[in-house]
Amino acid sequence: MRHQRIRPGEVAIDLPATFDAGLYFIGRIRTPWARRDDCPKNGADSDAVCTIEVDERYEAGLRDIESVSHLIVLYFMDEAARDIVLQAPNHYKKPHGAFALRSPARPNPIAHSVARLLRVEGTRLHVIGLDCRDGTPLVDIKPYFASIDAVPDATVGWHAAEQK
Amino acid sequence: MRHQRIRPGEVAIDLPATFDAGLYFIGRIRTPWARRDDCPKNGADSDAVCTIEVDERYEAGLRDIESVSHLIVLYFMDEAARDIVLQAPNHYKKPHGAFALRSPARPNPIAHSVARLLRVEGTRLHVIGLDCRDGTPLVDIKPYFASIDAVPDATVGWHAAEQK
Repeated sequence: MRHQRIRPGEVAIDLPATFDAGLYFIGRIRTPWARRDDCPKNGADSDAVCTIEVDERYEAGLRDIESVSHLIVLYFMDEAARDIVLQAPNHYKKPHGAFALRSPARPNPIAHSVARLLRVEGTRLHVIGLDCRDGTPLVDIKPYFASIDAVPDATVGWHAAEQK
Repeated sequence: MRHQRIRPGEVAIDLPATFDAGLYFIGRIRTPWARRDDCPKNGADSDAVCTIEVDERYEAGLRDIESVSHLIVLYFMDEAARDIVLQAPNHYKKPHGAFALRSPARPNPIAHSVARLLRVEGTRLHVIGLDCRDGTPLVDIKPYFASIDAVPDATVGWHAAEQK
């Protein structure tokens, strides 16, 4: 089933008939944005405090997380198309491949944000740096290690060229 | 079904009876490490060149990726236990929650590495910075944007305390 129309220059594919693995939604993300169109373009564009509500079932998995300054948060963009592999977002001049974009539309619509952890209350984590609709399903939380995750000199050539 | 024994201090939970969403394996990762025990502890510990083989079906999704210096690679750790939420890895002194660890064992065993892109040959991406077994299923590739993904001053308190 197609969830959205294709724009000029876009390419949609036939997805495989079956999935290869399953995901558990381990919680929900509470944000100020009720609808997709209300969301900031990315988490770094907003200072809004969001709350990650982890299901009680996974509480033991949070041990020591209060000592972590930044989290890698993976969440499931359940409204995104999964079949549009060449995309022409309105804010870019040309189409780009889904794997060269941070668009939620991709074969596995798992979003990734780095969020600053403000405080922990039981299974609720208050953070800054998310960009998703209220109620978005949570997939994973990881500690951000600057030694392996921070690459300040990384570049995205096509993006730099479009900003000129 | 339990995939591995629990160590002293560890906690396993009952996982939900059903999955909430499905994943497509969109390719495979070729590495020098045939077995899990051969792998480096994390991708930053190795200069080995690995190859991400994206299925032909998704080829259009790679448009412009050759201009990206670093990739966020998500892959599925299909040999990992999903139910051990409090874990006592041998190289740490105390048990820690799965969400405070980068262990592959977690409710959704999706690993995350930042890899440097060396070159693209069709649907094959040659990279440095991965840590997984040869044949590991690929879940997603994203461009790394330093502006939102690089946090050089991030800290992991429990980890720093254990290194003292």
